[in-house]
Amino acid sequence: MLDAPLRRNVTSARVLSVEAGRAEERGDRLAAEEPMEIRVGGPGAEPAPVAVTMRTPGADFELAAGFLLTEGLIDAREVIDSIAYCELPPDEQNYNVVTVRLRRPFDAESVRRNTYTTSSCGICGKASLEQIEVRCAALGDGPLVPGSTVLKLPERLRSAQPMFEETGGLHAAGLFDPHGRLLTLREDVGRHNAVDKVAGERLLAGAIPLSDGVLMVSGRVSFEIVQKAAVAGIPVVAAVSAPSSLAVRAAEHLGMTVVGFLRGDRFNVYAHPERIRLDA
Amino acid sequence: MLDAPLRRNVTSARVLSVEAGRAEERGDRLAAEEPMEIRVGGPGAEPAPVAVTMRTPGADFELAAGFLLTEGLIDAREVIDSIAYCELPPDEQNYNVVTVRLRRPFDAESVRRNTYTTSSCGICGKASLEQIEVRCAALGDGPLVPGSTVLKLPERLRSAQPMFEETGGLHAAGLFDPHGRLLTLREDVGRHNAVDKVAGERLLAGAIPLSDGVLMVSGRVSFEIVQKAAVAGIPVVAAVSAPSSLAVRAAEHLGMTVVGFLRGDRFNVYAHPERIRLDA
Repeated sequence: MLDAPLRRNVTSARVLSVEAGRAEERGDRLAAEEPMEIRVGGPGAEPAPVAVTMRTPGADFELAAGFLLTEGLIDAREVIDSIAYCELPPDEQNYNVVTVRLRRPFDAESVRRNTYTTSSCGICGKASLEQIEVRCAALGDGPLVPGSTVLKLPERLRSAQPMFEETGGLHAAGLFDPHGRLLTLREDVGRHNAVDKVAGERLLAGAIPLSDGVLMVSGRVSFEIVQKAAVAGIPVVAAVSAPSSLAVRAAEHLGMTVVGFLRGDRFNVYAHPERIRLDA
Repeated sequence: MLDAPLRRNVTSARVLSVEAGRAEERGDRLAAEEPMEIRVGGPGAEPAPVAVTMRTPGADFELAAGFLLTEGLIDAREVIDSIAYCELPPDEQNYNVVTVRLRRPFDAESVRRNTYTTSSCGICGKASLEQIEVRCAALGDGPLVPGSTVLKLPERLRSAQPMFEETGGLHAAGLFDPHGRLLTLREDVGRHNAVDKVAGERLLAGAIPLSDGVLMVSGRVSFEIVQKAAVAGIPVVAAVSAPSSLAVRAAEHLGMTVVGFLRGDRFNVYAHPERIRLDA
């Protein structure tokens, strides 16, 4: 599984930098953003597109595998026969189409129908959460994480985030063990892509289930992040910023611990605090 | 056009607040996030779903109208016959489905096909930008904005952003005139939704074209934001954080001015600096 050429994740640009009224042209580094199409096919079938996402190039195969995992379309590495870039014609664009071949039949049409045209009369609130549960194994007891460990996560995430330092424009997602050791970190212009890349890296490394994992994200916690983490079996999600109302509602329902506003010596626990150990 | 009940955009929650090792339960406010489905139909036709977006409730009709505008599906208020919430059955869910009736035929099936299943072999880079151009009137000369005015936008955006103060979890988009006067501001958990709400507010107020407008967003500038602003005819986009590579490439191509890292007494101009006046 060859991945994209190195350094496609950051690009150079000339900018007019204005400071205290003085302008000068200088070089700058930008987080790369490109569309990526994921195609999936079973044995003997023509792979069909299931999703297009705007992503930062790099870890593309992990992104494809993680997307399939967190959307509940596959649940084990063994289901994957191969992951490859588009082969013809020879063009830079080839790196924007990733094809996943599965060892079992796959109905791309029904996925597209469910992913893209779900009616929201009923996807919100109860019906929506029930829908997730169908695709989720129940989250287990999970780890007991000391509060002092939780407090260390933001700095560990940031110090392991190479592209952000360069471009200032990327979301990060990191998976930690209950002792606060970083297992894997990925960056992307899309927060959900960063989570998918982390989940895909673990899947391809044969390291799932993630039932002891603590996911830390650099920004907010949206419903989508809770949903993806739950489907991947991650019991604890922590974030620098706030969760949304639906993220908290989903987490309560799914048995997920959600920590937000994790900054300096403080944080809030929005759902299932029983996995956070608060004594010193 | 009745909008959703007030205050559905912020919800209350009980959180366990941990600070300097001490934990206490207290009330907190969360940015609300709910799915919204947009249905569109022409005269005599059954409205069909064209998109589902996770959004912060409020300004829902503006969001629907703005989405149709910035996706290039309508170009004038006059095309809209009515915008309404789902009528039956009487349920909270009704506020999550918005139906737009147009005065002309509308092919929802072809929109869904184009929106959801575009192949990315060719949507990136040149082909993608050509695709946008088809839907865009060329951006005109636009305004000449003094650098000193640009520097004032972040504070004006923030001070007019009521929900952020309360929840800390929302993106804002504000449309300013070339003198830095705020015309309209909207907040949402999704940055693209905040832009759509601003565009929709202007559309429904009969205030388009937006060819003198300066759009300021609270976060990053992604390709999607540049695309939406360009289709809406907005010539200048400014942001607190960084643009992505594809956002800059698209802006250069479309003739849009992009300002990033707008903080304190400094900013960078990433594309078309000719609309920024730098003398004191």
